[in-house]
Amino acid sequence: MNQHLLFAIAGGDLRQQRLADMLALDGFEVRITGFDSSPYINSGAKAFESLAETVNGADCVVLPLPVTHDGACLNTPFSRSVYLMDELYRSLSPGQLVVGGLINKNTYEKAKEYGFKIIDYLEREELSVLNAIPTAEGAIQIAMEELPITIHGSNVLVIGYGRCGRVLAKALQALGANVTASARKCADFAWMRVQGIRTAHTDNLRNIGEFDLIVNTVPALILDEYLLNKVKRDCLIIDLASKPGGVDLSVASQLGLRVIWSLSLPGKVAPVTSGEIIKEAILNIIAEEAMQ
Amino acid sequence: MNQHLLFAIAGGDLRQQRLADMLALDGFEVRITGFDSSPYINSGAKAFESLAETVNGADCVVLPLPVTHDGACLNTPFSRSVYLMDELYRSLSPGQLVVGGLINKNTYEKAKEYGFKIIDYLEREELSVLNAIPTAEGAIQIAMEELPITIHGSNVLVIGYGRCGRVLAKALQALGANVTASARKCADFAWMRVQGIRTAHTDNLRNIGEFDLIVNTVPALILDEYLLNKVKRDCLIIDLASKPGGVDLSVASQLGLRVIWSLSLPGKVAPVTSGEIIKEAILNIIAEEAMQ
Amino acid sequence: MNQHLLFAIAGGDLRQQRLADMLALDGFEVRITGFDSSPYINSGAKAFESLAETVNGADCVVLPLPVTHDGACLNTPFSRSVYLMDELYRSLSPGQLVVGGLINKNTYEKAKEYGFKIIDYLEREELSVLNAIPTAEGAIQIAMEELPITIHGSNVLVIGYGRCGRVLAKALQALGANVTASARKCADFAWMRVQGIRTAHTDNLRNIGEFDLIVNTVPALILDEYLLNKVKRDCLIIDLASKPGGVDLSVASQLGLRVIWSLSLPGKVAPVTSGEIIKEAILNIIAEEAMQ
Amino acid sequence: MNQHLLFAIAGGDLRQQRLADMLALDGFEVRITGFDSSPYINSGAKAFESLAETVNGADCVVLPLPVTHDGACLNTPFSRSVYLMDELYRSLSPGQLVVGGLINKNTYEKAKEYGFKIIDYLEREELSVLNAIPTAEGAIQIAMEELPITIHGSNVLVIGYGRCGRVLAKALQALGANVTASARKCADFAWMRVQGIRTAHTDNLRNIGEFDLIVNTVPALILDEYLLNKVKRDCLIIDLASKPGGVDLSVASQLGLRVIWSLSLPGKVAPVTSGEIIKEAILNIIAEEAMQ
Repeated sequence: MNQHLLFAIAGGDLRQQRLADMLALDGFEVRITGFDSSPYINSGAKAFESLAETVNGADCVVLPLPVTHDGACLNTPFSRSVYLMDELYRSLSPGQLVVGGLINKNTYEKAKEYGFKIIDYLEREELSVLNAIPTAEGAIQIAMEELPITIHGSNVLVIGYGRCGRVLAKALQALGANVTASARKCADFAWMRVQGIRTAHTDNLRNIGEFDLIVNTVPALILDEYLLNKVKRDCLIIDLASKPGGVDLSVASQLGLRVIWSLSLPGKVAPVTSGEIIKEAILNIIAEEAMQ
Repeated sequence: MNQHLLFAIAGGDLRQQRLADMLALDGFEVRITGFDSSPYINSGAKAFESLAETVNGADCVVLPLPVTHDGACLNTPFSRSVYLMDELYRSLSPGQLVVGGLINKNTYEKAKEYGFKIIDYLEREELSVLNAIPTAEGAIQIAMEELPITIHGSNVLVIGYGRCGRVLAKALQALGANVTASARKCADFAWMRVQGIRTAHTDNLRNIGEFDLIVNTVPALILDEYLLNKVKRDCLIIDLASKPGGVDLSVASQLGLRVIWSLSLPGKVAPVTSGEIIKEAILNIIAEEAMQ
Repeated sequence: MNQHLLFAIAGGDLRQQRLADMLALDGFEVRITGFDSSPYINSGAKAFESLAETVNGADCVVLPLPVTHDGACLNTPFSRSVYLMDELYRSLSPGQLVVGGLINKNTYEKAKEYGFKIIDYLEREELSVLNAIPTAEGAIQIAMEELPITIHGSNVLVIGYGRCGRVLAKALQALGANVTASARKCADFAWMRVQGIRTAHTDNLRNIGEFDLIVNTVPALILDEYLLNKVKRDCLIIDLASKPGGVDLSVASQLGLRVIWSLSLPGKVAPVTSGEIIKEAILNIIAEEAMQ
Repeated sequence: MNQHLLFAIAGGDLRQQRLADMLALDGFEVRITGFDSSPYINSGAKAFESLAETVNGADCVVLPLPVTHDGACLNTPFSRSVYLMDELYRSLSPGQLVVGGLINKNTYEKAKEYGFKIIDYLEREELSVLNAIPTAEGAIQIAMEELPITIHGSNVLVIGYGRCGRVLAKALQALGANVTASARKCADFAWMRVQGIRTAHTDNLRNIGEFDLIVNTVPALILDEYLLNKVKRDCLIIDLASKPGGVDLSVASQLGLRVIWSLSLPGKVAPVTSGEIIKEAILNIIAEEAMQ
């Protein structure tokens, strides 16, 4: 890759900081803004105060994940200042490449209006796959903290066999758990058998009472009143599904079941690894853009 | 599943025989024809001489893999008799469910003409996934037989990271090989990293000289003159790709390289497991047909 | 095993309670004392107030781990009462089988004086092996909590390749870490190679600066000033070695290195699994005593 | 290690040749004799005709495995000449270091008589551990060749949990087999549980009828008439135990059971890896001798 690229990192948390750091280590020129109160001292990137100065002439402008919480301000948890999205839009040049995470509809519209090119790195498949690793480790950490038994030898159900379910099931199995995974497609059952994992059908979780740990990865109400009533009293339920989540929380609460609903684990449990994963996705985006 | 189903197994090798046996063990009624000279004594299925009698009234007629070699006769390696395809077509009833492997165009046309329903079990994704297991074990067996070194500690390149590549790379890694896999998509590289496998780009196999064993799974000419010239003299190359194969055989031969081109390993190295895999695919077909 | 055995569990923490519970579930008669303020409600064991009543006629008396902290009183963290060791000794009958953990010299002498038979379950090899599992998981939990990177892909050094080192190295490797283990014996290096783990000599840890996580299992000062000076600033050091530990803590502190000295992890991170492990060791002791 | 050492390799098969080759590659001076008809062309070692010339002044003389078959001649399968042991003894100098495999009593006596120092590399523990890898792969290769089912998903019993049993059980498990191992010691059962392998007691193999593959590693008659009668008819039995073996062959033959008695697998299935393993053992011997 062309080492003469100029990156502008505008806002974000430890992940974007680490990303800036590693891009600088890779030999790229890196400008950052919005990290003035960060406890982490970045070695190789150059800090700027104004958004305009930071993004001016950058080959790639990197925005946070999410880009903005309220639509008005850039997401800059490590800054005492406020950065307005409108200022950002005005500072970008037509044709400039901008990447960010969880880009909202309004920002896409502004991209059309102002003519810059915007791509969501969260939609890159390789990022989703690699993010499954910190998600799985985060879930395992929670299980280790909460359960009075070891993962080794425990009976675990992983609901859903997408990226997250696969990586988590594999990691739990590697630690010696007796893992069952559930899915709905024949091909998924075949992959479970390749992996040596017991299979269950997500629509038929009758044996749910056998498990010490249940991790849901499916974004739909799976653990309803009927199933929660069959769950062991000392079972731990971890829900990794985005809103509205996969567990009927009011029923679980009435039954006294422990449910931990964990979202966005990668940034929480392994921000540095997360930053590295985002970096790679961005470099892949740039490489693909260059080939067009 | 409805245990009152009647299966008719018409022709095939050890796989279809084993399939008949297991269906009978599962409690289904099973009729077979075309196994008169088989060394294997089937316990629970009832043998018939005529095709018409065998298939008459069957809920599912199972044909071999491939159904026919020459288009004229059913593939019946375990029979002294000849079974004509035309006779088969005439014996089937409109609406009857027929399954087979590697069904050719003519048979599909006859299905339309005679009104029976025909489905190729080789096109089921779960079968392709599960068949990757005997394929991988077959490749490992060949490597063990041919190489004077152990798989453990050897440097292995698996070209292609589809079903076969994944299962094979995982098995070799499990035995302690240093495995590199090659692919072209970012998401595939991400899955290799999840699995702890080194990555290479299929279009850039410059380090090909490092490997003791190379297994190709991509059905395109990958190992051309340029690459073969870089391969170690005592490297073993196993080509699992269907015709025309992935290796320039004449160049390899000139260079004195050992290339083993292995096709259809499942039926050769593990016919019984293969029969079980086909059985499951057929039961899945029946279940899906029943739901329609 | 003879199901008519009578067990007396005198004191202890969640491990001994769980042990009592499971012995009752196995169908044995179980009496307990010293758990009056436990938050855990034991289902099948019968609670007694007096030591004498509890141990009277028991085929096996189970004492805590450690049996006593101060030599005078039984270790009963879940009781409002105080149980004197002297009272215990007087309550035991000649020839009675007593088991406990970390039995001190004085208790061994009292055993001779009073004629009861005492065996330390902590000295059973199978218990040491199985305890390595919760120890390893405890170390992994700490690493997950403390490090901003995933275990997957991290560079880890495990110092020592005894029971603990082996189980920990295997678990870290299973999670995708790049694991190096150190030892001093040729045979240990051979076992590491079987396991696919990189080898280092404990007396020559020159490459110590490469690691993100270092776990010491050797009860001797290994990480001295020389080595600590080479360790990466953001490396996490976990010391699992019993006193005096394997890390020069004052030097580490001066260097600003994070060192976590974790002892007795099994009882802390997985008390229920720990109780099960102790139960099995006790049943093995009884079986061996019965055979003599 | 001192690179100025002079090695003399006198006789042997592909393992000793490979050993010579690798020592030369490592930069040592290497002389060989007894490989005149070898199909393998050794690159870096210097070939001599006479034993005396070869061993004269060598820092380490390497003899084959076994050193001799008949006690009179050196084991030189790759030579048209005959090398007398007596000539060898006379050629060695007092104090000279000689290593060999399976050294017999007579040779040890001659060492005393002539004053040379002789050490058996087959008695090195690291060699025994590492040799378990080719032994395990050899057993797996046989199973793959003989069984019509895949290792993946098969039910396997490994009798004995010493070095060989451990490495084999681990490899079979890695390939997806359902592995049970048998032993007699509590600590071995604990290690099996760490590894996630089912346990059986070698003295109580009542469930032996469940297995598709049984591999014996214990050098004592384990599979007697009683047990063989319970074995499945299509089970494959591989006996890795040295004479007299662990299977009652006459009973097995009467029952029509397939038994394959495989000895010395490392040299047969992976002579090159075997040579490397011997090389390392020899370098360890030299290092230890140098420290004395």
